[in-house]
Amino acid sequence: MKEILSKIDHSILKATTTEYDIAKGAELTRKFNFATLCILPKHVKFASMLLPSEKVATVIGFPLHGVSFRSIIVETEKALSDGAGELDVVANISLVKEKKWQKLEKELSTIRELTEKRTIKLIMECCYLTEEEKITVGQIAVDTGWDFLKTSTGYGKHGATVEDVKLLKTIVRKKAKVKASGGIRTLDDVLKFIDVGADRIGTSAGERIANEVMYSREV
Amino acid sequence: MKEILSKIDHSILKATTTEYDIAKGAELTRKFNFATLCILPKHVKFASMLLPSEKVATVIGFPLHGVSFRSIIVETEKALSDGAGELDVVANISLVKEKKWQKLEKELSTIRELTEKRTIKLIMECCYLTEEEKITVGQIAVDTGWDFLKTSTGYGKHGATVEDVKLLKTIVRKKAKVKASGGIRTLDDVLKFIDVGADRIGTSAGERIANEVMYSREV
Repeated sequence: MKEILSKIDHSILKATTTEYDIAKGAELTRKFNFATLCILPKHVKFASMLLPSEKVATVIGFPLHGVSFRSIIVETEKALSDGAGELDVVANISLVKEKKWQKLEKELSTIRELTEKRTIKLIMECCYLTEEEKITVGQIAVDTGWDFLKTSTGYGKHGATVEDVKLLKTIVRKKAKVKASGGIRTLDDVLKFIDVGADRIGTSAGERIANEVMYSREV
Repeated sequence: MKEILSKIDHSILKATTTEYDIAKGAELTRKFNFATLCILPKHVKFASMLLPSEKVATVIGFPLHGVSFRSIIVETEKALSDGAGELDVVANISLVKEKKWQKLEKELSTIRELTEKRTIKLIMECCYLTEEEKITVGQIAVDTGWDFLKTSTGYGKHGATVEDVKLLKTIVRKKAKVKASGGIRTLDDVLKFIDVGADRIGTSAGERIANEVMYSREV
């Protein structure tokens, strides 16, 4: 059961987060061998002193992708130079709603080039998308070489759903992976999403879930 | 009663916002003479084609101030060059919680210099601050020459409260102004905050409130 923990991105993404919180998160990430510690860009430099690069994930354009694409580029470059090994990037939902597919594709391929071999995940914020939009966005991400489709920021109308994870798994086939996130707080939640194929789980309840795993009898 | 509308920053700050929404917001801003149309940075260039600069407000580091200060600077410069006349900037709450007051002061004075004579508002996200923290942050903003203290992003635990507006008014004395925002949806809400001294009101319900004003009998 412990290997479940290696699928968790332990997330600390609050406006109020301190370096103390990051240090504690880094310790938990080592202790439980979480996939990564997922933090805001302003904390990447600090976290990189405590963890190897591949264990440091950050979020770009989070949670609204409200900034200009120029700012997204600068945020991405800064996160990489500060030591982030994985990037979870919010999709520009305005472009989706405006049906500007070419522009979306351009943004996604630019980020793919910029990040070279790092793992990048596209946060689709499924709660705001129709099924057709999810399929189109997911397909563009797969075609431009993204590593993961991710369901949610945790700041939208709702978080991950089993239906969305199933749909995203269908879209990526074997070409990319799927991360479920948003509203995942217990081991039961984690198992529910892994059961339908989630390859990675984003949650701020990593410690609680790890303790549930440790005290679980079904090893 | 109509002059109340000139205190409103009509806000359109959703991840799903389209250019159509911005165009409609610009039309309402002209029609009702709102103080500004307050939008995400990615929409400033488009809005600047429809409204004069002093009517275009945007948000920086919104809503978490999660990015590095380097990104905040780039976002600010880009927003200015795209045509924003007012900037509502989220305070770095991590620095507050870490009691790094000098660093906070440095950030605020850097932004003040960069924005020259434009109107800048510090979004304090009061819902996460103790009374002592509100006083310290507000004082630093006033001392570094900020034009407004603003209560909330609308994405925090709660929005504006009458108590916070009263407190911020005490902090600014006559040296700066106060903007109430977050959870303001009706004319009654607006009047409640103006009654305790709010100089500006941020709301996504500008149209609804304007219609309430238009059909109000107490002129």
